[in-house]
Amino acid sequence: MGNKKAIVLVSGGLDSATVLAIAKASGAECYALSFDYGQLHGSELKAAKRVVKAIGVASHQTLHIDLGKLGGSALTDKKIAVPETETQGIPVTYVPARNTVFLSLALAWAEILNATDIYIGVNAVDFSGYPDCRPEFIEAFQKMAALATKAGTEGAEISIHTPLIHLTKAEIIKKGKALGVDYGMTVTCYQADKKGRACGKCESCRLRKNGFQEAGVDDPTRYVC
Amino acid sequence: MGNKKAIVLVSGGLDSATVLAIAKASGAECYALSFDYGQLHGSELKAAKRVVKAIGVASHQTLHIDLGKLGGSALTDKKIAVPETETQGIPVTYVPARNTVFLSLALAWAEILNATDIYIGVNAVDFSGYPDCRPEFIEAFQKMAALATKAGTEGAEISIHTPLIHLTKAEIIKKGKALGVDYGMTVTCYQADKKGRACGKCESCRLRKNGFQEAGVDDPTRYVC
Repeated sequence: MGNKKAIVLVSGGLDSATVLAIAKASGAECYALSFDYGQLHGSELKAAKRVVKAIGVASHQTLHIDLGKLGGSALTDKKIAVPETETQGIPVTYVPARNTVFLSLALAWAEILNATDIYIGVNAVDFSGYPDCRPEFIEAFQKMAALATKAGTEGAEISIHTPLIHLTKAEIIKKGKALGVDYGMTVTCYQADKKGRACGKCESCRLRKNGFQEAGVDDPTRYVC
Repeated sequence: MGNKKAIVLVSGGLDSATVLAIAKASGAECYALSFDYGQLHGSELKAAKRVVKAIGVASHQTLHIDLGKLGGSALTDKKIAVPETETQGIPVTYVPARNTVFLSLALAWAEILNATDIYIGVNAVDFSGYPDCRPEFIEAFQKMAALATKAGTEGAEISIHTPLIHLTKAEIIKKGKALGVDYGMTVTCYQADKKGRACGKCESCRLRKNGFQEAGVDDPTRYVC
């Protein structure tokens, strides 16, 4: 019998690059899954390819989903501006039901590959108020997944791993550095330009910047200004 | 305040046409959602358009999903043949995690539209052994959805309606006929030809044929032979 197979959601950002390194270090055979969901910051997907190549996976699939067609988020709808100051409550960058959709497709691939492990880089500390980044959501998804699948009905439990869920951005960066992740490859910015350079102003950039400062690690991010 | 908004999953088949008629009869403003998921029987989507037009909806979206890219089912993978005799256990026509993926995207749209009702034509009687057609799966999905969404965190419950779940095919047909559904518009066959004509042999055709017979309703299905 070979290694355990794991589906790892890889966006091209800092968090998911760390998760991929963690999954790989666990000894799992990793299957990376990325999504082209109409996100305006398409440079994320190029970053995902770089990250996956550098860390090494058994296979990498990028699935297209028409979330942009439904609109409703600053990340998929050009008419909604990405905020550059801190906001209260759930921000406009929230993509409705995004993690539910991503995990569902990961579940489909897991079932096809007979993989019982799915890794996702959600984080409940710097979670920006997104409901689908909370531990109680992940637990509910796992229960649902056990009932949704052929594997589940045959007793094979699907485990959703969220190794970053309780870590601060600084702790995530330290963990990734220890595993050799090159964060210069990753793109986190909500409005990065075509070359993958970050704006340095959006919420995602602010969290990332502070993370490197707190971790005492040199920030390899390329900023527009 | 206007009517309640409901997302209705419409495949172009007999069951979902009935569900749309039921949702419409409840007084809800209906938003029909179809999926182009690499299903080999593309005539389903044409049928979905006919059905939606005949019954009348506020909007109809067809989302493309790359399930075919992942393979693993006779419905999305040309290399796997659709069986023409009864099989034991979960058949090869099962599309991994399909209803989970469909409901997740319905949830995304519901959240954008501020709709709290989702209708899906799953059926636990003639359910062909698909795990994601069982009531316990639907309940688990609904619990997960409440935690996944902005609406859920603000106390607005999402309800997943499955009006056909305990009905036989004959009962579904009688219900639809009473609501004026024209089943001649629908395509159920797993391997319908380009003109929407059914094979008459696959499991889906057999269930449908028997349903019309048991209901004592003339079968308007166009068969290849």
